[in-house]
Amino acid sequence: MVERRLTSHTAPPLVRLALLGCGTVGEGVVRLLRRNAEMFQRKLGASIELAGVADRSLKPDPSLGLESRLITRDAASLVARPDIDIVVELFGGLEPARSLMLKALESGKDVVTANKALLAQKGDEIFRTAARYGRSVGFEASVGGGVPIMRTLREALAGDRQRAVYGIINGTCNTILSLMTDAGAEFAEALHQAQQSGLAEADPTLDIEGHDAAHKLCLLVALAFGVLLKPTKVYTEGISRVTLADINFARQLGYSIKLLAIAKDDGSAIEARVHPTMIPQRHPLAGVAGAFNAIYVQSEALGPTMYYGQGAGQLPTATAVLADVLEIARHRCAGSNTSAPALGYPATVVKPGRVKPMDDVLSEYYLRFMARDQPGVLGAIASVLGRNRISIASVIQQGRGLTGTVPVIMRTHEAAERDLKRALSSIGKLKMVEPSPTLIRIEEQL
Amino acid sequence: MVERRLTSHTAPPLVRLALLGCGTVGEGVVRLLRRNAEMFQRKLGASIELAGVADRSLKPDPSLGLESRLITRDAASLVARPDIDIVVELFGGLEPARSLMLKALESGKDVVTANKALLAQKGDEIFRTAARYGRSVGFEASVGGGVPIMRTLREALAGDRQRAVYGIINGTCNTILSLMTDAGAEFAEALHQAQQSGLAEADPTLDIEGHDAAHKLCLLVALAFGVLLKPTKVYTEGISRVTLADINFARQLGYSIKLLAIAKDDGSAIEARVHPTMIPQRHPLAGVAGAFNAIYVQSEALGPTMYYGQGAGQLPTATAVLADVLEIARHRCAGSNTSAPALGYPATVVKPGRVKPMDDVLSEYYLRFMARDQPGVLGAIASVLGRNRISIASVIQQGRGLTGTVPVIMRTHEAAERDLKRALSSIGKLKMVEPSPTLIRIEEQL
Repeated sequence: MVERRLTSHTAPPLVRLALLGCGTVGEGVVRLLRRNAEMFQRKLGASIELAGVADRSLKPDPSLGLESRLITRDAASLVARPDIDIVVELFGGLEPARSLMLKALESGKDVVTANKALLAQKGDEIFRTAARYGRSVGFEASVGGGVPIMRTLREALAGDRQRAVYGIINGTCNTILSLMTDAGAEFAEALHQAQQSGLAEADPTLDIEGHDAAHKLCLLVALAFGVLLKPTKVYTEGISRVTLADINFARQLGYSIKLLAIAKDDGSAIEARVHPTMIPQRHPLAGVAGAFNAIYVQSEALGPTMYYGQGAGQLPTATAVLADVLEIARHRCAGSNTSAPALGYPATVVKPGRVKPMDDVLSEYYLRFMARDQPGVLGAIASVLGRNRISIASVIQQGRGLTGTVPVIMRTHEAAERDLKRALSSIGKLKMVEPSPTLIRIEEQL
Repeated sequence: MVERRLTSHTAPPLVRLALLGCGTVGEGVVRLLRRNAEMFQRKLGASIELAGVADRSLKPDPSLGLESRLITRDAASLVARPDIDIVVELFGGLEPARSLMLKALESGKDVVTANKALLAQKGDEIFRTAARYGRSVGFEASVGGGVPIMRTLREALAGDRQRAVYGIINGTCNTILSLMTDAGAEFAEALHQAQQSGLAEADPTLDIEGHDAAHKLCLLVALAFGVLLKPTKVYTEGISRVTLADINFARQLGYSIKLLAIAKDDGSAIEARVHPTMIPQRHPLAGVAGAFNAIYVQSEALGPTMYYGQGAGQLPTATAVLADVLEIARHRCAGSNTSAPALGYPATVVKPGRVKPMDDVLSEYYLRFMARDQPGVLGAIASVLGRNRISIASVIQQGRGLTGTVPVIMRTHEAAERDLKRALSSIGKLKMVEPSPTLIRIEEQL
């Protein structure tokens, strides 16, 4: 509970935080709480106090104000303490994070978290529990690090209907693609460099295969369209098969390759997909380099808006956590919770949405076939595409290769995935074309 | 007051709006209220009803739901009606907007406005009145049209300290400068074109001389730094003296020219200025073209973030008005007002801030002298600059001119305005140099 100090009539009330997990972001939260304590007090008329930290391996660090009396290994007891107002969950992962968050909400505490994996998979349970107990779940830090896209979708764009969301929301992938594009590195080399500089994990699978972006896209979809989507419903393709050759062909065609998380709402179904995407070099998203994130939103009345900033890192992510803490603290000090529902709509109104099957999705495509350098190849490929209602917008055919195969690059007009898959399967049976051509989707009209 | 309808137990409560002024943006508000009524009802659990419109010349338009019973010429009586919850002020200008807003707040109504001129000049009175009566003033629409920069500074960045704000916040100026840059038009021609396409007013003074941007900058400063500044304290210089020649020299030097509203807080004083500014062509702000707006914020922990979108127009601006209406409606339905204070800090904490005199501001400069094409000119100019502690970073000296004068372009390292003004005054006395050289400030490190 928010406590009015008894020692003095003029002392401000206290809002007490419990921190679950004190890794990179947790330490950032501790730092900012100290550094900006006086500012928070002026803004709130209340002090925010770190009342306890649960962490398996944290050692006391008095220079950060992490006295040993604050540190515990027993997260459940910390969450159960009646003097705690807000639980900041930074453990990540499904358990024990889920159980601890539910316990916190059930005992009247508010929760702030950066846990996109948990919210994408168990968000319905958590948001409904929060609504039942009249508590808040702040999760600004879960998408885009310090980029305030969650509250923007929930509140700033609340008067409008969102049509589409395009996000560069995985800093590891964007760093790798930037290194490939700017330094001419192949994927493996760029990944290695990103790992050396701490911008990619030792096991980078979750990032480079697009799963992290898919989790985040579920939260973007929830806020943009009021629909809860499971990550398994998101078509997900990572960047590990993007080659330097494709990046260079993209450049020739006027495109940059980005790992985009894309969601669209055509009014009857939701499209949700994460994959390497060619976008026009002049588009604002194309200039988003390195570990930066950006979310480009197309709204019905407002048109396009873009939100850009550091998508990860200790202090940027901690600022997002603290924005949520301050908002909740304000409501607690006022003794009432009139914050917007976590997903913009009351939890009872948010429903699972119909997801458009990937087969029905329309896109333009970049296709790279490796073909024998002999007459008739182009015609053979083109006629299979034509039979499948796919029309070709442009072709790049390169000179003679040393290995006997040459790349044939085609850019198509808009076509359905179903038709394209059927065409590629037929082309794969042609003797003169190597199997498994490269396919990269193009977003021309974003 | 929010009224529970008496006709049915299940009917949702009503929130009633009064609209003052139904010009471009007002009509947009009316349209969105109709178009999105069902969505608002789902989000709020309440209906938003347009209860009255005060406008001097509006005619009934049943296709928009503007029945004649809703329309009045008597704004004061509309504001005084006890059934009104929220007054949306879109008259613009100082009076009667100011008196009507104060009346509304004093009688327990909340206010939403797009009136940057009024808030910049009389904001202290209005925000204090709102705080005294426990009411809200929403003003998202006053800066950046549909770009949600106000609530971002107030809430999303609340956990951090802002260091600097750079805004492209006048669509007219940005349109004109884009036309000059992309189509090679001179200022007068570009202004004429912008007027033809409705992107510049018949009397464009407020925009092109930078006053509109200065008003908006006062609001950005209030939210970024918690300091109330009068527009007269903002150094303001418009774009009417920017020439195509300077735009072309800027390009040679790697810069774009934008009208930037710049505010910095070095911890002891606030710097606030609006003027044509050269920024590196690769900076994200340089790509913001035409009527688009963008605000680039440098924060201590978060680093840079940018917010981009349509800075004006009927529907984009109306979405910002409606975001405020929805937020206030939510609080009214809950029967309590726990929204953040209008300026982030409680009104009692916001104070007039110390403004750094323009003489003390440090900047790099682009200087264009028109000089006689004779030996010694460059040396004479350079030595005056040197005597005034201004060091030259690069020089462009063009070939022989037909008129006897040639442009001498200099880019300086960082120097104080005081020193630069003294130097220019001395150089103006040189016989071989025409008076009134062109000076454009450069922001290299934004």
